[in-house]
Amino acid sequence: MALIVQKYGGTSVGNPERIKNVARRVARAQAAGDQIVVVVSAMSGETNRLIALAKEIQATPDARELDVVVSTGEQVTIGLLCMALIEQGVKARSYTGAQVRILTDSAFTKARILKIDEDRMRKDLDDGNVIVVAGFQGVDDLGNITTLGRGGSDTTGVALAAALHADECQIYTDVDGVYTTDPRIVPEARKLDRITFEEMLEMASLGSKILQIRSVEFAGKYKVRLRVLSSFEEGGEGTLITFEEDIKMEQPIISGIAFNRDEAKLTVQGVPDRPGIAYQILGPIAEANIDVDMIIQNVSHDGMTDFSFTVNRNEYDRAVAILETVKTHAGAREIRGDRSMAKVSVVGVGMRSHVGIASKMFRTLAEEGINIQMISTSEIKISVAIDEKYLELAVRVLHKAFELDQVGA
Amino acid sequence: MALIVQKYGGTSVGNPERIKNVARRVARAQAAGDQIVVVVSAMSGETNRLIALAKEIQATPDARELDVVVSTGEQVTIGLLCMALIEQGVKARSYTGAQVRILTDSAFTKARILKIDEDRMRKDLDDGNVIVVAGFQGVDDLGNITTLGRGGSDTTGVALAAALHADECQIYTDVDGVYTTDPRIVPEARKLDRITFEEMLEMASLGSKILQIRSVEFAGKYKVRLRVLSSFEEGGEGTLITFEEDIKMEQPIISGIAFNRDEAKLTVQGVPDRPGIAYQILGPIAEANIDVDMIIQNVSHDGMTDFSFTVNRNEYDRAVAILETVKTHAGAREIRGDRSMAKVSVVGVGMRSHVGIASKMFRTLAEEGINIQMISTSEIKISVAIDEKYLELAVRVLHKAFELDQVGA
Repeated sequence: MALIVQKYGGTSVGNPERIKNVARRVARAQAAGDQIVVVVSAMSGETNRLIALAKEIQATPDARELDVVVSTGEQVTIGLLCMALIEQGVKARSYTGAQVRILTDSAFTKARILKIDEDRMRKDLDDGNVIVVAGFQGVDDLGNITTLGRGGSDTTGVALAAALHADECQIYTDVDGVYTTDPRIVPEARKLDRITFEEMLEMASLGSKILQIRSVEFAGKYKVRLRVLSSFEEGGEGTLITFEEDIKMEQPIISGIAFNRDEAKLTVQGVPDRPGIAYQILGPIAEANIDVDMIIQNVSHDGMTDFSFTVNRNEYDRAVAILETVKTHAGAREIRGDRSMAKVSVVGVGMRSHVGIASKMFRTLAEEGINIQMISTSEIKISVAIDEKYLELAVRVLHKAFELDQVGA
Repeated sequence: MALIVQKYGGTSVGNPERIKNVARRVARAQAAGDQIVVVVSAMSGETNRLIALAKEIQATPDARELDVVVSTGEQVTIGLLCMALIEQGVKARSYTGAQVRILTDSAFTKARILKIDEDRMRKDLDDGNVIVVAGFQGVDDLGNITTLGRGGSDTTGVALAAALHADECQIYTDVDGVYTTDPRIVPEARKLDRITFEEMLEMASLGSKILQIRSVEFAGKYKVRLRVLSSFEEGGEGTLITFEEDIKMEQPIISGIAFNRDEAKLTVQGVPDRPGIAYQILGPIAEANIDVDMIIQNVSHDGMTDFSFTVNRNEYDRAVAILETVKTHAGAREIRGDRSMAKVSVVGVGMRSHVGIASKMFRTLAEEGINIQMISTSEIKISVAIDEKYLELAVRVLHKAFELDQVGA
């Protein structure tokens, strides 16, 4: 008897009919002899509706109270899904984040999971129940309701799988797996049967939008077997996210082209190149809970350097305001920025042992006249920041250049 | 510095604009030097929307899960109202029933409050916060979410006032006080400046719909000073609900005409008149959590008696089904019922010392050709069950007969 955590996103539970479909799928999985824990998001559109309601009251809603309001979305879904399961003769019990006791820190709207009590769930499972848990939410040690931020239901799923030592965490979504890139941009994009955690991490953080990055980090840290599946198609195997040690030698060099549309670039020009300068600039940004993506500091000239980083476009104005206050203190000359950036990345564990990937990428972009504004590399990915208007073109030509449309590439 | 509990119903918080109005009223009350605890209902229409959603999934929704779903309505309101208060510069913190720890029994959808922890609220109040609590909901000792049933937000308000030893519990509603009867039926109905707890109890239980009966019971038990006010008009004093010992001798004989539209009558005919028979019949009804209103057992003939009671019309079918199973065991001859009943009552503490109230009531109805099907009396009210089609007529003629349209009557 396996223990499976299944996570269903907002589209999968978007209306009563779809909730009944999810219940049927869950019932079948339990009938097949497994213990099932289900994590659900709010019905699609619901979170946005609640945020809009909050913004009618307060332009920038109080974070603690916003979590109180927004967390109701998932709470409605857990109740409805349990009703659908009970209606189909399956014993089921719902739990909010506070009830399972998904303990988080107190960073409202962006909380991080610290601990999950598994005793109550274990007992319910042993009593033959399906457990339905509200994703995206938790409770801090003072009993305040917290949320994990957008996409946090994936993280809830993986965290529950880790706490319960589940055999697999299945993320049901509106795509049937992880593709070499977005099929809406490159119709030849192929579904990958498997992808390594590290690659998935890069793919997710770079905007492939299938899995929330923190859920993949969690899965990697706690060695949770993670699978992405379609909630609308039956019988597919989806994409299994594997540990690198499982990978065979014939692993392709490049797994996919990832991208992120909503980037904005900030550059602090002419700062003294001395120890602590990066912290002096990024510390206040982090304190404001603004996620920073690419960070680049080039070699210095005459003891001065330029320091650049990218943030989500929504955070651009806040980040600029913070940098203006930091500027004098850091002794910087100027703050510059560009809010219409995109990032394109070539991802693959195989690239470590292969030279020439970077040069091939740069040549391909140059041939199309696409200017590269920033470059950042890791062991398994090369990212470039470009003007957003070239994004689709860049993705298409790179997908073709690395022959990702060909099976076994 | 007084401690005031203010309760606002669904209409008062029906949209963002109204929520802001409530916030202004609360802010003024705090600025006047009082400590304020606010209890709110779900935005009007929200509870019905959630119940409809549940019924799309399950015709008779699982009670535990229904509470999980429905309790989100008030949770949204507390967050929104706190945002509105914070926006107006007032420190505010929201609490769900589970967070305040409004401990209830586990009768889902109809739970009763057992205990409220006041420490956390007291601390927040002393720190200068307005506290906003979700009405209608609580938590059982296993941590399950419960709701108190329709109108339960009033009960939450009074229970909080009792736990905190508040100076007054103000129930804001869409009427400006308690009237001698429903002004929609009798335009001459007058607002009462004060009414005794006992009268209010009878008025509420008989369907005047302004206050939930349980809240009045609570107020009486814990000596909570209770006031009904309009949330839309400024400056009104509403109706104060007083303890009988405060009442002067010139108390009017009759305070009002109450009524309830949605009654259904059940009669168990020909049961042996022996000890325990009432329990044998009503025990299973109570166990099914069906509230019984009037109960009548007449004198017996030849050791056999008829036993009648009324229930809410929604519970009629369930009650009949239960009686059918009880019938043989109780040795009854037949179960009869009528689902289109109404109840009309004359209420007043003054009637105790005045004879002839009952006969005046019966004569007034007889003159209009209205047949009385059941009669039930207490110290301060006389109730009759009549065919529902005569309800409005009965209320109007009784209101006039007892001169309730005249000030000082």
